Amino acid sequence: MSEAKADILLVGGGSVGAIVALNLESGRHASVTVVCRSNFAAVSSRGYQIRSCDHGSVNGFKPSIVVNEIPQASDSRPFDYIVCTTKNVVDVPPSLFDLLRPAVTPGKTVIVLIQNGLNIEKPLIRAFESNIVLSGVSLIGANEPEPGTVVQDFPDTLYIGAFRNPKVSAKLEDAAADDFVRRYSAGGKTQCSVDKNVGYTRWRKLVYNSCLNSICAITGLDTGRIRLADGAVTGLVRPAMKEIVAVARKAGYELPDSVVDDMIEMDPVTLYLPPSMLSDTRKGNFIEYENILGEPLREAEKLGVPMPTLKVLFHLCQAIQWKNKELKGLVSVPPSSSAA
Amino acid sequence: MSEAKADILLVGGGSVGAIVALNLESGRHASVTVVCRSNFAAVSSRGYQIRSCDHGSVNGFKPSIVVNEIPQASDSRPFDYIVCTTKNVVDVPPSLFDLLRPAVTPGKTVIVLIQNGLNIEKPLIRAFESNIVLSGVSLIGANEPEPGTVVQDFPDTLYIGAFRNPKVSAKLEDAAADDFVRRYSAGGKTQCSVDKNVGYTRWRKLVYNSCLNSICAITGLDTGRIRLADGAVTGLVRPAMKEIVAVARKAGYELPDSVVDDMIEMDPVTLYLPPSMLSDTRKGNFIEYENILGEPLREAEKLGVPMPTLKVLFHLCQAIQWKNKELKGLVSVPPSSSAA
Repeated sequence: MSEAKADILLVGGGSVGAIVALNLESGRHASVTVVCRSNFAAVSSRGYQIRSCDHGSVNGFKPSIVVNEIPQASDSRPFDYIVCTTKNVVDVPPSLFDLLRPAVTPGKTVIVLIQNGLNIEKPLIRAFESNIVLSGVSLIGANEPEPGTVVQDFPDTLYIGAFRNPKVSAKLEDAAADDFVRRYSAGGKTQCSVDKNVGYTRWRKLVYNSCLNSICAITGLDTGRIRLADGAVTGLVRPAMKEIVAVARKAGYELPDSVVDDMIEMDPVTLYLPPSMLSDTRKGNFIEYENILGEPLREAEKLGVPMPTLKVLFHLCQAIQWKNKELKGLVSVPPSSSAA
Repeated sequence: MSEAKADILLVGGGSVGAIVALNLESGRHASVTVVCRSNFAAVSSRGYQIRSCDHGSVNGFKPSIVVNEIPQASDSRPFDYIVCTTKNVVDVPPSLFDLLRPAVTPGKTVIVLIQNGLNIEKPLIRAFESNIVLSGVSLIGANEPEPGTVVQDFPDTLYIGAFRNPKVSAKLEDAAADDFVRRYSAGGKTQCSVDKNVGYTRWRKLVYNSCLNSICAITGLDTGRIRLADGAVTGLVRPAMKEIVAVARKAGYELPDSVVDDMIEMDPVTLYLPPSMLSDTRKGNFIEYENILGEPLREAEKLGVPMPTLKVLFHLCQAIQWKNKELKGLVSVPPSSSAA
């Protein structure tokens, strides 16, 4: 017995997107249209060259359709899902919801955000008030050393759950999450499970992202070196992580004390992995500091939980972002004068 | 009437040292032996080429003696003063007192530390317990764009006062400060005055150095841009400065509230000056974070004053220093393993 393949638009054909597309297509319950930007020429001509701890070597993998811009939704064949694996930099236009708008069919398309941070669903639910929005929290490790070449060195574990849209029934939202997990798991090569507590999962991942990710980005040290560097774990990482745990608990998500060590020791120290924000700062790219640091900080302020460490890390990231905005011409400064 | 010139050993023949030497020699009450390192070849052959807001253009200025290592003190003609204008990186050997030891004549040589930070005299007073140690706080702006070429773009204002060595009479210490100021001022081109409250002066300068200097170094933004960047002054600079003011007051130095704005607005915004630690991080050089951040933080801990912002800045600088120690081979990490 066969069922219709879901039509899935994948926005973000980088390293994580490539593995997501491979999982979905190999399960044969999805047909993926992938939107590629900088690697469009490579992927549309030769497909992806993938070396993966989950899939082995896969050369020339091409999703069903490869495009270089977000397509208009078709009336006859609307997208069942739009999966977003792009970086989500809310302080740099255009916004994600403006980008997605042409492809979203109201009341139909389910939007899946495989993206970091807190409150990322809010602008999408405001923009698409009749649509279901799902949370995807991914523990994958993957990078794209050159356009179209993807190395996945940490297994793809994906948690999918429903964000709550007040105008959509929770039952339908949960059914959409179930359906997506089934399609994603059909290939059998990956761990995808339903996330019944999206808030808990997101706060848990923030213990890593708000703290290790930002501290590595600011200092220029990878996850192995930050554990070896004088005083960095005791003076920075642990205090920051404890602040996230404290505000998560105040928000109703009872993270265990052990989450701090679990996150610090998640990777073997000698992997020397650059977390996402460090990769970005090394390339002079924008960082996702608003969703990763700004939103937890604002939640903490609302809940009256002090976050002295995170507050400093947030403002340092904000200054680093401003520096990159100047380099990319989004802000400018008055001409230089001379002291002499 | 003429008096004997003082024999002065100047340790640190970079940009600040060059201006110090020029002041001392032009007043004709001092004979300067300057210790040059990276610029020894240039200075010993052609002298300094100086463009100075205080002195105008001075080409080929040569101090009385130019050497490339710290000389042994002569029994017949010991150094009256040793003036240190080097960077003082206490967490990287060799220590300053070990470097100076051969040139110091016990009970005779007055050591003048024109260097940043707090408690910098303590290891010197321990090492040379019969010697006078003077504090020099300088507001000069100078740099050396190439070896031996010095640009001074901010006037040399120097405050000289006595650190208190418990084994030396305060009267002799104060007389030494007076004598040095007289010799330094004799050229008439600069502002050098006696500092009757060394602690106050040093804490006051820390308002700039612990805060603006470190925040610029960490973010990569100069003093103009840090004032223009989103949230940096309100979120970082002001909170950090207020912490320094609070602990200074608890330590007995009544800095006025206005010092915060005075330090933020010290330079016109459009000068876009890199403070010393930013210049150092840009070149991958070691930073003076221990004297500038570590010591104030330890004073705050002793006095029970919270320093949440400075604590994070300190540990970030410590991690950045560790990164540079690895780059320069002072620390090493275990070999890299692979995830696959």
